[in-house]
Amino acid sequence: MDEFELIRQFFSRSALDHSTRLGVGDDGAVLIPETGRDLIAVVDTVVDDVHFPHQLDAADIGYRAMAVNLSDIAAMGGRPRWATLALTLATANTVWLEKFSSGIFSAANEFGVAIVGGDTTHGDQLVISVQVMGDVAAGSALTRNAVCVGDDVYVSGSIGDAAGGLQLIQQGLGDDSSRLVQRFCRPRARIELGQALVGLAHAAIDISDGLLGDLGKLLKASSCAATIELADVPLSRELRTAFGDDGALQLAMTGGDDYELCFTARPENAEELQALALALGIMITRIGTVEEGAGVRCQQGGKPVAITDPGYLHFSESNE
Amino acid sequence: MDEFELIRQFFSRSALDHSTRLGVGDDGAVLIPETGRDLIAVVDTVVDDVHFPHQLDAADIGYRAMAVNLSDIAAMGGRPRWATLALTLATANTVWLEKFSSGIFSAANEFGVAIVGGDTTHGDQLVISVQVMGDVAAGSALTRNAVCVGDDVYVSGSIGDAAGGLQLIQQGLGDDSSRLVQRFCRPRARIELGQALVGLAHAAIDISDGLLGDLGKLLKASSCAATIELADVPLSRELRTAFGDDGALQLAMTGGDDYELCFTARPENAEELQALALALGIMITRIGTVEEGAGVRCQQGGKPVAITDPGYLHFSESNE
Repeated sequence: MDEFELIRQFFSRSALDHSTRLGVGDDGAVLIPETGRDLIAVVDTVVDDVHFPHQLDAADIGYRAMAVNLSDIAAMGGRPRWATLALTLATANTVWLEKFSSGIFSAANEFGVAIVGGDTTHGDQLVISVQVMGDVAAGSALTRNAVCVGDDVYVSGSIGDAAGGLQLIQQGLGDDSSRLVQRFCRPRARIELGQALVGLAHAAIDISDGLLGDLGKLLKASSCAATIELADVPLSRELRTAFGDDGALQLAMTGGDDYELCFTARPENAEELQALALALGIMITRIGTVEEGAGVRCQQGGKPVAITDPGYLHFSESNE
Repeated sequence: MDEFELIRQFFSRSALDHSTRLGVGDDGAVLIPETGRDLIAVVDTVVDDVHFPHQLDAADIGYRAMAVNLSDIAAMGGRPRWATLALTLATANTVWLEKFSSGIFSAANEFGVAIVGGDTTHGDQLVISVQVMGDVAAGSALTRNAVCVGDDVYVSGSIGDAAGGLQLIQQGLGDDSSRLVQRFCRPRARIELGQALVGLAHAAIDISDGLLGDLGKLLKASSCAATIELADVPLSRELRTAFGDDGALQLAMTGGDDYELCFTARPENAEELQALALALGIMITRIGTVEEGAGVRCQQGGKPVAITDPGYLHFSESNE
């Protein structure tokens, strides 16, 4: 099967709407942007055995590759519209490709994204780059650099579940019916929430590398600090049961892969935010406050907890 | 050096104009499309030791990775505007990265493209995916499916040089001053020509896989055939000197990597096309005629030459 046959067989079935003048099959795709809206472009690559365990089901690999990009669009408050796929394959196995394409189209269709182009190449290792183009009302994208001192810090959903799920998969305990495993395999991009936060939140980021690291990036981009109350970080019952309270918190702070949103907003917007959460059926939780300074300060029951490594939470002896 | 440092150090220096609201450093880039223009999106991946020899200079690898994408924009008649880079690295060598980024920015700057986002990941092998977004007056992109029976078939520049250059490199004869080697290392995207062909040509494709294969794709998309006069295929003096007349023709028909344009146009436009070529300082050559049917028929001095394999030219005994 050559490259052209492969593209035709597996990647030419996207439902194209009026916004796509020309999809897969030419030198490029021709798209019709909407007047008065900015274009948002994101790209994320996942590599076999680096970003997911080698044994992951091909449908889940496909779903995740699209979802992690949709999550970036969500963090900008955007509407996803079109995607391109750059797929480097070590082998061209039709069973694998059929499953992979069903997964990537599943995520694309769920959010109304047309896969409009791509490139397949041969290499030593499976490498999947997805680029998603979205849009947002001109000038209103949620960025990282607009956090204000005095803002509340929020997260959506529960944190740490995907990292817990990954550990279960790696330990051979991954059961498809486990909610933790599903959170890793099928992360749900918070597109609706992101769009609703435009005008209501000051700044947002998606949690891909762990709450501590990603909140740190948000604050750094805005030259602010924040204090987080660890007892307020939303941990699921499943995560606490599987890993204990301390283990669950560790996974939440440093684990990554949740693709929930972390955002900041004025305290005056708290009520409206909770009404929004209720309307969307998405839990949002206030976990801290933005302050002057730099970095993320954590406290537990009012006692400071020292953090020595961004991305790694160190509970120092002196604070016990 | 972590991913964030790497992006900051090597890929944050694109000159951003008023069309880029937000570049590298957030969840995504925010771009301002121009009213009345369609968006063109292309993506091409190059893999170490597959699409270029491992020993290629990092600056050339960077330049080529951008240029092959710009060439796709040229084949659509588009103006390139923004690019994203997905870079999978086996090692993070700062000397290599410095050269690579100088090469990719060199191609980007030459054509006014802003590198607005990217993702760097770790893998077993160097894999470079570039996505370029461009635009074109609404509804006027050059596509592959608009070839008409009776059209003349044209190519820009001379064909086969890059494939010859690649052979010289592979044989250890690659001398940086050789024009053939330069044609492989620094393919020049025919952006100006592509834009000028809008309204003048019916359909276009860029020559990446060889004239025979790429012209075949153009004709297949339009359900037409063409007869090519092999004596008219423009071969450079350097290519003939290095590989002989037959070797040069073989490289031209099946070699690829030239990134010249192959296009078709009404015979009535011949004079205007030559005036355009003169104005741009780009040679364009009529090499054949579009007919009813399917496939590419070749003749040499009026005698048919049988082709049994698309992408491979077979001079059958019966036609000698």
